[in-house]
Amino acid sequence: MGVMKGVIAGIAPRATLIDITHRIKPQGILQASFIVGTSYRYFPRGTIHLIVVDPGVGTSRKALILATPQAYFVAPDNGVLTYVVADYLPLPQGEGVVFLEGHPSSGIRLVSIENPEFWLSPVSATFHGRDIFAPVAAHLARGIDINHFGRKENSLFCYSLPQPVSSGEVVKGEVVYIDHFGNLITNLTPSHLPPVEPQSLLVEIGGYRIKGLSSNYTGGKGLIALMGSSNYLEIALPDGNAASYTGVKIGESVQIKATKACH
Amino acid sequence: MGVMKGVIAGIAPRATLIDITHRIKPQGILQASFIVGTSYRYFPRGTIHLIVVDPGVGTSRKALILATPQAYFVAPDNGVLTYVVADYLPLPQGEGVVFLEGHPSSGIRLVSIENPEFWLSPVSATFHGRDIFAPVAAHLARGIDINHFGRKENSLFCYSLPQPVSSGEVVKGEVVYIDHFGNLITNLTPSHLPPVEPQSLLVEIGGYRIKGLSSNYTGGKGLIALMGSSNYLEIALPDGNAASYTGVKIGESVQIKATKACH
Amino acid sequence: MGVMKGVIAGIAPRATLIDITHRIKPQGILQASFIVGTSYRYFPRGTIHLIVVDPGVGTSRKALILATPQAYFVAPDNGVLTYVVADYLPLPQGEGVVFLEGHPSSGIRLVSIENPEFWLSPVSATFHGRDIFAPVAAHLARGIDINHFGRKENSLFCYSLPQPVSSGEVVKGEVVYIDHFGNLITNLTPSHLPPVEPQSLLVEIGGYRIKGLSSNYTGGKGLIALMGSSNYLEIALPDGNAASYTGVKIGESVQIKATKACH
Repeated sequence: MGVMKGVIAGIAPRATLIDITHRIKPQGILQASFIVGTSYRYFPRGTIHLIVVDPGVGTSRKALILATPQAYFVAPDNGVLTYVVADYLPLPQGEGVVFLEGHPSSGIRLVSIENPEFWLSPVSATFHGRDIFAPVAAHLARGIDINHFGRKENSLFCYSLPQPVSSGEVVKGEVVYIDHFGNLITNLTPSHLPPVEPQSLLVEIGGYRIKGLSSNYTGGKGLIALMGSSNYLEIALPDGNAASYTGVKIGESVQIKATKACH
Repeated sequence: MGVMKGVIAGIAPRATLIDITHRIKPQGILQASFIVGTSYRYFPRGTIHLIVVDPGVGTSRKALILATPQAYFVAPDNGVLTYVVADYLPLPQGEGVVFLEGHPSSGIRLVSIENPEFWLSPVSATFHGRDIFAPVAAHLARGIDINHFGRKENSLFCYSLPQPVSSGEVVKGEVVYIDHFGNLITNLTPSHLPPVEPQSLLVEIGGYRIKGLSSNYTGGKGLIALMGSSNYLEIALPDGNAASYTGVKIGESVQIKATKACH
Repeated sequence: MGVMKGVIAGIAPRATLIDITHRIKPQGILQASFIVGTSYRYFPRGTIHLIVVDPGVGTSRKALILATPQAYFVAPDNGVLTYVVADYLPLPQGEGVVFLEGHPSSGIRLVSIENPEFWLSPVSATFHGRDIFAPVAAHLARGIDINHFGRKENSLFCYSLPQPVSSGEVVKGEVVYIDHFGNLITNLTPSHLPPVEPQSLLVEIGGYRIKGLSSNYTGGKGLIALMGSSNYLEIALPDGNAASYTGVKIGESVQIKATKACH
């Protein structure tokens, strides 16, 4: 929302404002989390990421500043930081609270946003993005230390991210994200793939079978599979939209295995 | 349109450019007016708001600079400034011309954009945003006094904004805006509500009845009503889209009254 | 994509970043080309235009920097520069390779992007926008000479742009672009029009006949034709969407002729 940028411009007029995306769906907490998690390393060190997907605004959910060696994240405590936290700490099996203690070398710090000195006044019940998160991010950008915004926190809420499982010769993952082009992005990384040549792999998803991995988005007819720019296996339709074509949605199972060699 | 920003960057390279929204519908004059009217106070004092929803481009409609104690507004004279003007002057009963004279203490000034010295050349007939409004806003940002752009004007066109009416114990308003989340924003402010506890209020809209006001967007099943971040009563569907759910459109009537206490 | 801006901010923190549009469709090479071609003259001289519509990413398609007297363009060699090149060189009859040699006075220079010194490392196979084009644009913004990025190139791929043809008293063109408002923009410029008064022209498109040219987007009922802001004849529906109303798509034929005078 542009109004949050107006608030920031009033507090930190020299801050550079960059929109990561205009495509987050309402209540799209995990969608936003994935985009932040795959983007933040490409921003300058010390960048402040302001993430306000906040359907629980006005409830008792906490507001947080997460500091990592790479960046700051200002966000509600609703799981939107899951993909970032996963880069530093083991996530819970099911969704739940992640504790920082016991991981002193993670290099991450967490502060709850509690000091109204850095907020707009009055604070509305339903738009903390404008009234709390944006001004806090702006004051951070001006150099205020994170400890001035509230108390040190020891835990935050994270979703559990589905983990690929191997069963026999098959590795099973799932679709975790669908991008603007309709590409189906899975949770399978190179480390999950059977140790064979890419052209010997067989990918199965939504009743479709894809033989071999492609190295780019061009190709013949039909679906292709390839390693995407965030190092996840993805399924694409050259010059088309794989999500529309297959009807596959987030959460759909994907399998990968080596095909039998038949000389 | 990005090309307007290119024009501004050429004239006022140090100006900070902020998009308020990318969601204005074609010909959405009142939609844009509402967004500007509920946003401008959150921008730094002296901000120049460039508002080009301009279906009448190339006709005899005037082009204006409105200066208030808080901000500048560069816009066509087609009603897009209605919500801003309403903060300073009484609006007409029906849509029509609002005169500044008689309100010397309003603190607002109005100038017609007539001096081609500050425009691109040649000026197209159909894109004054690029050829007139953007360069005028840029020259304003460079510090040119508003009186250099044209003549002092004494009136501008405004829509009439629907006013809530009380009839007996019932206050009747209407939906004036539907936001990106599908929340139905009405013209009822706290001053219109019957003086009872929020949980004793009954809201009726589109055949739905909502008991009590919520304090945030979470809740059980079904619609909720709450005071939104711009201080208007709104109807929302937690984790859903109230506009799609109800089929309610802008202009739909909403009623609020106190429920009978039944101890 | 915002992540490209993060990359640029890390390399050229003082660069001003402007989005031209958020509306390019996936694989919309000619759509992007039209927007860049009709916008670039409005940006300050020396602006660097970063254009990453790149379905062929990871194939052997080249990456280019095109320098014109007005601006720089960083883009894949896939035709997305067609409308810019058309301002300086004759285009091929069919789609194909355009050679710079033989046009020494065009004032344009072309360099292939080959020097990995200016790229992110590692480079993904599928997101050169982030890994190659954005960092190259950022280094250009810092003042690196284009000859440091690779070798001088003598040719690039361009689409052939459909040319209007006259046959008897009729000029035939086609729809080359449909804008956000649904206006149907053709390839007919003022030079193609029969030399009669605007009100004596007859435009035919998709089974509709439009008598006379309008000077703005208002009007009675039904379609209108007018000269648009980029100097192309366009067909519009006042307060409506001509594309939805007519079902006309890009490539549709449009005819214009003088009506018989019948006194």
